[in-house]
Amino acid sequence: MPQWKDVLEAHERIGAWVHRTPVFTCRAINSITGSELLFKCENFQKVGAFKIRGATNAVLLLDKAFAENGVATHSSGNHAAALALAARNRGIKAHIVMPETSPLTKREAVAGYGADITFCAPTLEARETTLDRVVSETGAAFIHPYNNLSVICGQATAAKELLEDTGPVDIIMVPVGGGGLLSGTAITVRNMSPATRVIAAEPKNADDAFRSFKTGVLQPPLKPNTVADGLLTSLGPLTFKIILEYVDDIICAGEESIIRAMRLIWERMKLIVEPSSAVPLAVILENPQLFKGKRTGIILTGGNVDLDRLPF
Amino acid sequence: MPQWKDVLEAHERIGAWVHRTPVFTCRAINSITGSELLFKCENFQKVGAFKIRGATNAVLLLDKAFAENGVATHSSGNHAAALALAARNRGIKAHIVMPETSPLTKREAVAGYGADITFCAPTLEARETTLDRVVSETGAAFIHPYNNLSVICGQATAAKELLEDTGPVDIIMVPVGGGGLLSGTAITVRNMSPATRVIAAEPKNADDAFRSFKTGVLQPPLKPNTVADGLLTSLGPLTFKIILEYVDDIICAGEESIIRAMRLIWERMKLIVEPSSAVPLAVILENPQLFKGKRTGIILTGGNVDLDRLPF
Repeated sequence: MPQWKDVLEAHERIGAWVHRTPVFTCRAINSITGSELLFKCENFQKVGAFKIRGATNAVLLLDKAFAENGVATHSSGNHAAALALAARNRGIKAHIVMPETSPLTKREAVAGYGADITFCAPTLEARETTLDRVVSETGAAFIHPYNNLSVICGQATAAKELLEDTGPVDIIMVPVGGGGLLSGTAITVRNMSPATRVIAAEPKNADDAFRSFKTGVLQPPLKPNTVADGLLTSLGPLTFKIILEYVDDIICAGEESIIRAMRLIWERMKLIVEPSSAVPLAVILENPQLFKGKRTGIILTGGNVDLDRLPF
Repeated sequence: MPQWKDVLEAHERIGAWVHRTPVFTCRAINSITGSELLFKCENFQKVGAFKIRGATNAVLLLDKAFAENGVATHSSGNHAAALALAARNRGIKAHIVMPETSPLTKREAVAGYGADITFCAPTLEARETTLDRVVSETGAAFIHPYNNLSVICGQATAAKELLEDTGPVDIIMVPVGGGGLLSGTAITVRNMSPATRVIAAEPKNADDAFRSFKTGVLQPPLKPNTVADGLLTSLGPLTFKIILEYVDDIICAGEESIIRAMRLIWERMKLIVEPSSAVPLAVILENPQLFKGKRTGIILTGGNVDLDRLPF
């Protein structure tokens, strides 16, 4: 289990490399939901997502001798860009394995941070075998996108800033995919504000974390198919353990609600957020009675969307 | 000519009713343009646009006896919503004349603020005659969207906040349509930072302000046809006089640059801005040599876009 002092140290360690993002409120959405919502804008974060927190903490924690060989991961998403930037900030190499089907903008972002990219077939197996080869050829340190203590402690700093800036809240909500942000958030809340409930939001169409949480047994994803493309991954053993111990509930939302919530944030808050970021608000729209009259903090996880392929 | 003390008083008067919007920077866009850009986010303003500043100042300045009959205007855009909200805040009626072709979302926004809406044919003549009728029937005070001293002094407060928050800048840029924001900005800059250049940005396809400025004679619009639909109006005698005296230059940008600039702001800053707001950055993209190495403040004027009709 990560200790609270690890989170405190992570926050000091990464402070120079990440933004302290603002917390926004929106009277129109409060009025629609009958609750008081406080949105932490990690869409304004470096690389456009909270992932830079965990990646930076993990990269900075590597021993000097080990770090010289660089870092590696497989990802087509925000973790790839985050690790690439974190490595460049430390002056070491990042080796990123990406599916050859990755959109051009994501390739360009990763390449723009100076990472070495190795393309592979778009299957989990191809990603893992390619990564193994890259790691054995380069001696790079594999930084898992979420099932990694240093990454979790880095992600935990977002909720720490949120609570520092908002004061007491009744509930904190984040979306759950692999569970890095959720487990980090839960550690922070248990230490800073034990009475605050931690509720995760997950797409119904990718509900493996929900099923794992309710059964107590890590469940595999069942052909996830959701507009919230940042939440397709499944929990890891480490994040699952923390989530089982510290999270109060996981609630699912349907695709229509996710798209409606995303559009509300775009139209009413004038913020560009990716679909994954809208899942907590989607849960609130589907279950207003659970949030009515309550103060709820929400982490808007990222803003990297393909403007040519919007869901509305 | 409006006096500086009118602007200072306007700022005090409207303070409780408008947001003090933040100033954002973006390293990626600075690096693309080779300059330091400071964006004042009036897209986060109440009603989603700076127009609430001028409307609020004008409504609050009305004599009590006169105000009791309410206020009126014709507009299909941000001024309509702004005047509706400003009137509701003072507890008086707003009568808005809108073309019957106005998008549903705009009608709903104005109706949502409790205004009386009168629809008319979508011509300037129909708008003006309908407004005349509404004014004579109700005794409401006509608040012109820009050719009005109180409105101009209200809009001037955006640049005041920008300069207070950024300190000295070399240039301030705003888009120009009717010239309310531009003339207000120019008054503020001449009084707070006389060495700062005021440069207006206008779509090439709606360049009547440019032609008026260069010839010194108020020119009519020539079938304006631009994606920047907030800038279709032409200068008024009052705004033109202030602009001729205080503005340093007006530079035009093409439609492709405006769309590219809008997309850059969406993708890199994660901000939803309307096309009009992107015209200053479009001018910078087309004329980088004029801005290289300089600190330039830009007012992002609004964020009200129809997500079903994006230009990209």
